[in-house]
Amino acid sequence: MKIETKTAKFTKPLYLESGRILEPWQIKYETYGELNEKKDNVILITHALSGSHHAAGMYEGDRKPGWWDSLIGDGKAVDTTKYFVISTNVIGSCFGSTSPMSPVNPGSHERYRLKFPVITIKDMVKAQKILLDSLGIKHLKAIIGGSMGGMQALRFAVDFPGFCENIVPIATTYQTKPYVIAINKSMMEAVRSDCEFQNGNYDPETIKEKGLKGLSAARMIGYLNYISPKTFEKKFGREYVKTDGMFELFGRFQVESYLEYNGAMFPKWFDPLSYIYILKAISIFDISRGFNSLEEAFCQIKDKMHLISFSGDTLFFPEEMRDIKRFMDSVGGRCNYFEINSDYGHDSFLVELDKFNFIISDILAGKIR
Amino acid sequence: MKIETKTAKFTKPLYLESGRILEPWQIKYETYGELNEKKDNVILITHALSGSHHAAGMYEGDRKPGWWDSLIGDGKAVDTTKYFVISTNVIGSCFGSTSPMSPVNPGSHERYRLKFPVITIKDMVKAQKILLDSLGIKHLKAIIGGSMGGMQALRFAVDFPGFCENIVPIATTYQTKPYVIAINKSMMEAVRSDCEFQNGNYDPETIKEKGLKGLSAARMIGYLNYISPKTFEKKFGREYVKTDGMFELFGRFQVESYLEYNGAMFPKWFDPLSYIYILKAISIFDISRGFNSLEEAFCQIKDKMHLISFSGDTLFFPEEMRDIKRFMDSVGGRCNYFEINSDYGHDSFLVELDKFNFIISDILAGKIR
Repeated sequence: MKIETKTAKFTKPLYLESGRILEPWQIKYETYGELNEKKDNVILITHALSGSHHAAGMYEGDRKPGWWDSLIGDGKAVDTTKYFVISTNVIGSCFGSTSPMSPVNPGSHERYRLKFPVITIKDMVKAQKILLDSLGIKHLKAIIGGSMGGMQALRFAVDFPGFCENIVPIATTYQTKPYVIAINKSMMEAVRSDCEFQNGNYDPETIKEKGLKGLSAARMIGYLNYISPKTFEKKFGREYVKTDGMFELFGRFQVESYLEYNGAMFPKWFDPLSYIYILKAISIFDISRGFNSLEEAFCQIKDKMHLISFSGDTLFFPEEMRDIKRFMDSVGGRCNYFEINSDYGHDSFLVELDKFNFIISDILAGKIR
Repeated sequence: MKIETKTAKFTKPLYLESGRILEPWQIKYETYGELNEKKDNVILITHALSGSHHAAGMYEGDRKPGWWDSLIGDGKAVDTTKYFVISTNVIGSCFGSTSPMSPVNPGSHERYRLKFPVITIKDMVKAQKILLDSLGIKHLKAIIGGSMGGMQALRFAVDFPGFCENIVPIATTYQTKPYVIAINKSMMEAVRSDCEFQNGNYDPETIKEKGLKGLSAARMIGYLNYISPKTFEKKFGREYVKTDGMFELFGRFQVESYLEYNGAMFPKWFDPLSYIYILKAISIFDISRGFNSLEEAFCQIKDKMHLISFSGDTLFFPEEMRDIKRFMDSVGGRCNYFEINSDYGHDSFLVELDKFNFIISDILAGKIR
């Protein structure tokens, strides 16, 4: 599989939903496979909260492949011998696209930080569309994304009707519910409560080196809904760390040790301001914004929609995906709904590939219409 | 209803499950109604994580009555014209019982802080039993408690078999599951991540005055499981605060404003170290500790058990209460199980009294055996 990582830089302003402007701006992306002559074999992959453009393959020195490596590759469901796959890092994220830690002006040492504009899912999608335009791509075979990636897929379908043959939103929603807004709020406040965050004026290198406990705590909160109570039970039970005492205040169960480790690692690879900005983008996501109703929004969609949800998802409940199916049906849209039986939890879309990758093969092969 | 608030002080050491000792120690408690001559009309009420001895009635200047005021009072399900009700503040909590902020020695300015011993549910119950002994109470009509209060009720039944006629654990578990341990861990780490916590060396008056953002964030995490996603939806929807902008980074949905308010108030009335110690007590709760098996633990119980769970509880799932019923049945114990149909969430035990107070009346009246 041929992998390339690139940065597309744009000097023309990016007009955001907020009325603010990013100028200049850039988007980091990765491609797998080869673009055919007709440029009609393109699949767009969209990532979740802490994801990046690095969806598949491995670079030298990496310990783990990209986050959807089980899905994307030669001979896999998203077959890179047939398709040219593009995976972008969303605007606002910290892996090379324009983000809160970008310089306010080219060459300037001043970074945006809290002056960075609020980014929306619509903005992320707009940036992706400009990138596709710049590559001369006029049509997509599919957009596939889970969680926040699914929001992008939906948004793309509404904002650019007819551009894409198959929209595949996975484990997502059409309008972020107050429960998820509350989770996001707790995470934001955990970050902000750490004095080392310095109200956004932290030194990023210091954070990478020394960590940021508030961001670690936020990451732990995230895990509470990424995997289900049943998965917590299966993975950890009530095993206690061997060298810790039950009656030591900070003695740990295995599950606590796991959270501590993953929490401590997080600030080494994810930026706290990007985290807050992306949480905000998720919280304010509403497919109907700009329309008079949800029906009117769904009415825009001309592409085939294929929804995949997981029965045990406690972040974006299957009910929400069923709502989308209902809306699509009510406006006469083309929509398939697949509910995967699984008690793993929200992260099923990253972990239980064997339960749904055949659906994606079938969609791409035209067997599911 | 006659209400009295008292503090019982003990000079004899309290031997804790950890092997540590508290000496001297004290327990704050409130009583409602009057003790009869035979001292056989006593009901013990046990509180949850952030609860206190103040379960019912109102003091001058109070804006709200005690936390179970709808249940306890003259003519109510726990009828204070008939029963003498005792509600204690657990050891470790910050409302007047011995806690991490107590002086290490009488009259000393040095407080325990992180040198305070880890407290367990067994220790809380032991302290309550010593209090009852000191009052000459040799038998209880009932112990009733929800959440951590239910753990105390269960523990009391196992540790002092035959002392109590009716055990009523509500919305609780027999062994804290890794999912709840993980929630508790996130809350502990949110508190610890706030530099103002000063690793436990904070000035309590400063915290009360200025707040502690990490503790506020912890409280927000708690809410995520106290009420259900459906209750979040009903209570808040996606209403935005009128004066806030959708594209302001810290602009707020109503649900965020609610969490912010309750989060900000929490450090004014709850101590961060007590919070951490009680979370620890909940995390390490296991009714089988000290026995060879769960069956052996449940085998100790001689009292009538009446379990009440809520279908929509996502903190202590009804499955866990059904497990208790199963264990009790397997050892031939007397046990009723009531599952209340409700989608409110864990806090049903505090809020939806009208759905289960008649069960408690019937238990006390001997109609449910």
